[in-house]
Formats: sequence, structure tokens, C-alpha cells
Amino acid sequence: MQSLLLVSSPAPAAPAAPAAPAAPLPDLRRLCVHTITTKPWPIEVAAAKFAAAGVSGITVWRDTLAGRDIAATGRLLRERGLAVVSLCRGGFFPARTAEDRGKAIDDNRRAIAEAHALGAPLIVLVCGAVPGQPLSESRQQILDGIAAVLPEAQAAGVKLAIEPLHPMYADSRSAVNTLGQANDMVEQLRSPHVGVAVDVYHLWWDPTLQAEIARCGRLGALFAYHVCDWRTPTIDLLNDRGLMGEGCIPLRQIRAWVEATGYRGFNEVEVFSTRLWATDQDDYLRKIVQAYRDHV
Amino acid sequence: MQSLLLVSSPAPAAPAAPAAPAAPLPDLRRLCVHTITTKPWPIEVAAAKFAAAGVSGITVWRDTLAGRDIAATGRLLRERGLAVVSLCRGGFFPARTAEDRGKAIDDNRRAIAEAHALGAPLIVLVCGAVPGQPLSESRQQILDGIAAVLPEAQAAGVKLAIEPLHPMYADSRSAVNTLGQANDMVEQLRSPHVGVAVDVYHLWWDPTLQAEIARCGRLGALFAYHVCDWRTPTIDLLNDRGLMGEGCIPLRQIRAWVEATGYRGFNEVEVFSTRLWATDQDDYLRKIVQAYRDHV
Repeated sequence: MQSLLLVSSPAPAAPAAPAAPAAPLPDLRRLCVHTITTKPWPIEVAAAKFAAAGVSGITVWRDTLAGRDIAATGRLLRERGLAVVSLCRGGFFPARTAEDRGKAIDDNRRAIAEAHALGAPLIVLVCGAVPGQPLSESRQQILDGIAAVLPEAQAAGVKLAIEPLHPMYADSRSAVNTLGQANDMVEQLRSPHVGVAVDVYHLWWDPTLQAEIARCGRLGALFAYHVCDWRTPTIDLLNDRGLMGEGCIPLRQIRAWVEATGYRGFNEVEVFSTRLWATDQDDYLRKIVQAYRDHV
Repeated sequence: MQSLLLVSSPAPAAPAAPAAPAAPLPDLRRLCVHTITTKPWPIEVAAAKFAAAGVSGITVWRDTLAGRDIAATGRLLRERGLAVVSLCRGGFFPARTAEDRGKAIDDNRRAIAEAHALGAPLIVLVCGAVPGQPLSESRQQILDGIAAVLPEAQAAGVKLAIEPLHPMYADSRSAVNTLGQANDMVEQLRSPHVGVAVDVYHLWWDPTLQAEIARCGRLGALFAYHVCDWRTPTIDLLNDRGLMGEGCIPLRQIRAWVEATGYRGFNEVEVFSTRLWATDQDDYLRKIVQAYRDHV
């Protein structure tokens, strides 16, 4: 009876018995923080602060690279002892006109070049959507866009991670709204350079999540794992994410599902929060590290 | 290739070829408006205004009945020529303690009595969720709660419609977030008194929507159809719905899927909008009627 409720339609594989929640992480070796999490800090400040706090990896948002020598910035991050985990973000492939879709593809080629220069092995794709355009059409344009840039990604040794976004972003940010859809795309694109970024904020509610994480693992496509929390109430659709522990997402349950696939990559803290950006960022970074230990 | 993208996991039945969008509605005979749509109006005012505008049905929110003789209010609505379509809302079954779950069941029994007194044949259920409680556990409590009140519903001749809510409400408003889950519950409860309310705002993004609407129809469970629109950007998670035509929801496509099941019940306009509540409500009602003709 329970399994009928957990899975709304036959899942691609029967989910295993619910895995026990994961144990606390023993150290910070798998902790990565996104530059946007501490948005007020320029990347050089973030790098120094993250390293001093024991953070092991950094995911770089492209806006933080503006005006920088990208290769030199990558070296600076590594000299701080930080692993450059990924570059955020490419995507936004759908558009009404072929010309605009071409511009989106060009921008993704630039992102690949930037990731290569930075030394980031992965680009996270926020795939895009056009308000009023059928979602199925946008998904086809996303497939076409990824296929178009795949040769450059392969040549640069940069992988691409489709990030399914919460259905509340289906209007204008992504027509890929479930892990099942992202896995479908991975199957269609059939490239070791195309996989998925699993972000708990977008996917925690999905009754097929456990089964689709397992499927993603079988596809060899679980490229990244992002954590934060969902606050009640959430007062802004974009910038009111919670720090881990501030909300209702079963983080240790989901990490157990992720690790059951063999994933041992970074746990990336990606929090957009007007509220938290307004606080003292040194204090906030201490809270991030503590929340990682207590809740991830 | 397209169908793989449309359906993330094997759907309960292969979707039919995409139905052509529905034709415009020829008249207002299937137009119902929810009292909350024109929230500033007391129910007596709403009834008079709706009737004068040619609206055919009314769905009554319980708050509008406060301090009224409910049976007399029902008579007043019918004297205006309005069909009493449903009572909003019951539900909110999940709770941490058995005592609180019992209180929720009591409140649903009161709702059934109110619907009976009002002459409403249907109660819409916003099923509920408890932040931090596993969604699967909340869904079980929802099933148990509906089962507990079913005898009263049958005795009163009142049907219950499970309304799946958008995943952005999974934290605290409903653990039922897809039509697939609602259909699963209908199958488990096996009662002609339990069905589903399909609301485009909650479900438009779902790649399995067409297939699940068809399944709902086969179950004989498509009890209600609610329309509004999704605005870009949406600035509030609760009260920033759009009037039909103001957003990106493919209303005529979805109505075609609904009508392909044989559904010919009301198209219910349910808009929560701080922005629209602040406008002249007479003017707004004219816009509702026009939007119904132009976009539903």
C-alpha cells in the first residue's frame, strides 16, 4: 500500500527498501561551497575564507569571474587548496527564434571555454524555458542545444550536468523539472560528458526521487549533489532558500540514496538568500560549516 | 523521442496523441467562480454580481459562511440561479499527534455537515502536510483521514475531491503533489464518493499530466476542474495567481485533455491575487468573464 503512494506511476526500477538515513559526515573533505552562497564576497575573498574555514571545494558562478584572468583565478583557487568543483552556469537553450537559440549556444561555448580556463571539470546547466512555449518544445530545444555544444565540451574535457529545477521554475527557467526527465535526456544524449546535478531544493518532494537517483547512478550520470533547505514559509521564489537544518528537506535520507549509487563526490552548499546575504558573512560561513556537520 | 521527454517514467497508460486544443467555450453555462476569487465581496454581494454577469455556478469558501445561516445561504444562491458547485475546503489531515489528527477529522465532519446544509455536492480537500514529517507518512495520514470521514460523506451525499497541490506547497499544505498520487489514492480508497479536483495552477508543468487526466477519467474520478494562470515572474507563493491569459498555462490544451475524458462539468475560476483583489471588483468580474471566453 505504501509503495503505491510513494510512486505515482511505475518507476523505472522498483525502489529499494527505504535506505536508512546517512550517518553524519566525519570531516569537511567533501564540503564544497558555491560562490553565490556568500555572494557579498568577491571570489578572492571567498577563496581565502573558505580555505581558512576548512572548506575543500568551490563552485564558481560566472559573474564572479567578471574582469578576471580566468586561468589565474583558477590557479589562485588551487593554491588555496580548494578543488574547483564546477562552473555555474550554462544552459538557457530555449528561445522563440533560431537566432536567439544560436546566441544561447554561443554563450554555452563561452562557458565551456571559461570552465576549461578555470580548470573546472563540470558545468551546471540551468536548461531554460520560454513562458508560453510548450514545455515539450523547450525540452527538445534543450536536447538540441546540448548536442550542439557537446563536441566542444568533449574537446575541452568539461562535463555538462543537467540540473532539473523545481516545477515552480517551469515558466521561465527550466522545462526540466524532475530527475526522471533529466535521466531521460541523459539516455537520449548517450555521452559520458552529459549527466545530472541533483539539488535537494528542486527535487525533495518528488515521490519517484529514490528510484530516479538509483537510475541516475546506473546511468553513471550522477555528477553533482547540491544541498540547502526549504523554509516554511518561503517568502520568495528565488532568494529565500534555507541553510541546511532550517527547513523540511530530509537531507540525510536523500544523501543515503545518493551514496547508495556509489557517489562520493562533493556535497555542494548552494544557498540563495537575501536574508543570509545581509548577515555577517564570516559568521555565516561558520554556520554553514556547522550546518554541514549537523544536517547534511 | 518526443514521448520519452514528455513522460519521465512509464505512465499508467500510453498518452494519446496530443489532443488538439479545445475550441472556445460557446457560452457561460459551465462558468463557475470561487468566492475567494472576488474575496472583498461578502457572499451575498458575490452571488448578486455573479448572477448579473451571467456566471452559472459558485464555489463557496467556508470563511464566507461565518455567522450565516448556511441552509438559508444555499437557498439564496440557488434563488439567484447559481449552481452551488462545491465547498472549499476540507483536508489538512496530517498532524504530529493523534489528538491533532482527530481534531482535523472533526473539522472535516463539520465541513461535510456544512456542505450538506449548503446543498453543495462536493468538498475540495487541500490534504495537508507537516513540515519535516516524511511526505509518505503524511500521505498515509491523509488516506486514513479520508477513510475516517467517508461514512459521513456518503450519508450526506457529499463527494470529496482530493486536490493535488503544486510541489511548492509540499512543505506545509499538501503531501499530494501530482495527479498521479491523487489517482493512486482514489484507487486505494475505492469509493464513488472520492475523486479529484484538477487545478491547472498546480499541475500544468507535469509531463505525465495528459496520461494522468485520462487515468482519472477512467477511474470516474474527475470531479472538478479549476482554472487560473501562472504569471512570470510570480512574486508570492500563495497570492499571485494570474487571471486566465495573464500567464503561461496552456489552458485550451489542458481542457481538451479534461474533456476527452467526457468531463462536462464546471470550469471553476479560482484566483488568489493580492493585486487583483485590490482592483475594482465589478471591473474585475467583467475581466473574468472576458478571460473565460478568450482563454479557458
